[in-house]
Amino acid sequence: MTREIFLLQLGTGGVGRALVAQVQAQRALLAERYGFTLHYLALVDRGGAVHTGQALDDQTIQTALVVKESRQPLAALAGGRALDDWRTLLPTSACIIIDVTAAAGMETGLAEAVAAGHRVVLANKRPLTGTLTDFTRLTARSATRYEATVGAGLPVIATLQTLLDSGDTLSRIEASMSGTLGYLCSALEDGQSLSAAVGTARSRGWTEPDPRDDLSGADVTRKALILARTSGLNWELSAVPSEPWFPSELADITVDAFMERTPEMDRHYQELVAQARANNRRLRYVATVTPEGASVGLRELPPEHPLAALRGTDNLFSFTTGRYSEQPLVVRGPGAGVEVTAAGVFGDIVATARELTGDR
Amino acid sequence: MTREIFLLQLGTGGVGRALVAQVQAQRALLAERYGFTLHYLALVDRGGAVHTGQALDDQTIQTALVVKESRQPLAALAGGRALDDWRTLLPTSACIIIDVTAAAGMETGLAEAVAAGHRVVLANKRPLTGTLTDFTRLTARSATRYEATVGAGLPVIATLQTLLDSGDTLSRIEASMSGTLGYLCSALEDGQSLSAAVGTARSRGWTEPDPRDDLSGADVTRKALILARTSGLNWELSAVPSEPWFPSELADITVDAFMERTPEMDRHYQELVAQARANNRRLRYVATVTPEGASVGLRELPPEHPLAALRGTDNLFSFTTGRYSEQPLVVRGPGAGVEVTAAGVFGDIVATARELTGDR
Repeated sequence: MTREIFLLQLGTGGVGRALVAQVQAQRALLAERYGFTLHYLALVDRGGAVHTGQALDDQTIQTALVVKESRQPLAALAGGRALDDWRTLLPTSACIIIDVTAAAGMETGLAEAVAAGHRVVLANKRPLTGTLTDFTRLTARSATRYEATVGAGLPVIATLQTLLDSGDTLSRIEASMSGTLGYLCSALEDGQSLSAAVGTARSRGWTEPDPRDDLSGADVTRKALILARTSGLNWELSAVPSEPWFPSELADITVDAFMERTPEMDRHYQELVAQARANNRRLRYVATVTPEGASVGLRELPPEHPLAALRGTDNLFSFTTGRYSEQPLVVRGPGAGVEVTAAGVFGDIVATARELTGDR
Repeated sequence: MTREIFLLQLGTGGVGRALVAQVQAQRALLAERYGFTLHYLALVDRGGAVHTGQALDDQTIQTALVVKESRQPLAALAGGRALDDWRTLLPTSACIIIDVTAAAGMETGLAEAVAAGHRVVLANKRPLTGTLTDFTRLTARSATRYEATVGAGLPVIATLQTLLDSGDTLSRIEASMSGTLGYLCSALEDGQSLSAAVGTARSRGWTEPDPRDDLSGADVTRKALILARTSGLNWELSAVPSEPWFPSELADITVDAFMERTPEMDRHYQELVAQARANNRRLRYVATVTPEGASVGLRELPPEHPLAALRGTDNLFSFTTGRYSEQPLVVRGPGAGVEVTAAGVFGDIVATARELTGDR
């Protein structure tokens, strides 16, 4: 006999659709391995929802994915409907709400759902990087998991929480957690100009449509704040200062104008690379979190530093603690991508479902 | 309101005592964070048990640790008693049985406890590396966790299980999982003779009292089998051939005689190191697990291989899968030590306790 777990998924973009496919493909194996069966109660996006009040059948889910692929809203689907608020779809017994949107303003609704006994799994960083009050409400009684927000499918949050649960004490997290910025560092060290490297990365789809969304460091800063708050450091976002790669006069122009003016930055980065090389050091975009404070920016690292060996788009997380003091605990690998991000969310769903059904 | 979780701990050696200290220190934080309270129902060793039928109080536990430090059996303690079988101490409702012994023959009792609805957490590798039938019974319904058996406190088993749960497919695990043998590889590359390196490692306490227990590769082979079985590969131990560091004629002599004769091996290892260097390769003791088969032994690796960067006693686990195909997922850090091993067990206890109480 297996127990039923209902999922309410917010967001049906690339990660959301990959997640649906993983859930459908693994349902039988999970039932056998853990004794629970995952069912979709609803799929929700900005344009509406698919919700019947019962478990959605495979055909309905498949149709919804096709509708989304063709860039129509879910409300356009047979059985789909417009929606003011996804909270009206919540069942009375505990379900798992999955936020794989990139939307702002989700935190209030999610925190209320947590207070009502539901569980939450996030790939969306925003609900965790608003005010500390919102973070605290959302993570009350450990009801929310968010592995995919920092390292996609890499075991980062779970590792940190396990260390701290057992009484280990954080000395320092050092991390390279932007594949895009990691690629730029490698390209600069290979002698490319910054403008050429940014152009290549953009044309390969490794940057956001506006590369300044990566180059601002804002995404890394949000990840650093999530690591800090997970470590029990009660900080606001302003406590994590970051260094953008571009000067402020390039912040408010159009994307095309920005791309045209990137060569203005080339000389500065050439000098930084030459200086690092002269010091026998490597240039990396590093987030550092310690109990005393955090920083995010370009750093010169000695060749024996764990982050110095990093090449290309890989992410790396180095945890130095009371117990891992001489040699850190290091996790490394691709930290972005639709499939691995969905797998990170999936891992959190399984862990949550095991909790909801574990007293078998 | 918190719920009570009872622990029955088998083994009160170094790891066992460190674990008791961690449980006692973290009890209040876990109650606040997860809503459960851990209680020791019994501490058991070969010499007897401390068991009152209720939660052991802190004073009784403290006294038991002192008794053990002074190398007396638990039966010698006030409240302690001799014991034929720890299974007579099991309560009727689900508890967590922790095996931090290195004892053989535990698998039958543990599997029976699992069948009766109890959960198991292991640092002891032996129950997992007996027959496949025993492994299957013990891990039925995912009732047994065993993170500490392979990487001590490193997230290895959980990472592998999460990948596979989400439908990722294993291509290859490559791992260096003996700190002792890793140290020997580094020392050989630094120009030391094997006999000198073994002597140093032994005098620093980095080897077992009989260094052949490390040099046989048997411990690495058991870990490789656990990784394979966790990956769903239904192998017996004989499917994982290993290469000992010493010739068979040195297998059955006394430890002192063995230590005296280690210089006989020096020339062979000098040649291996020289050959690797001539090929611009690194010498590492590597376990490889693929769906097609496994091997454990000294390998020459190109400098760009993830394991080539490893120095000293660190462990490293590299997972190449369907989704992590171009760049592997890598976990690295100290893979032995009393405190980090106890922390690995502790993480499994917390995950299990969250399951047993998670439908709050």
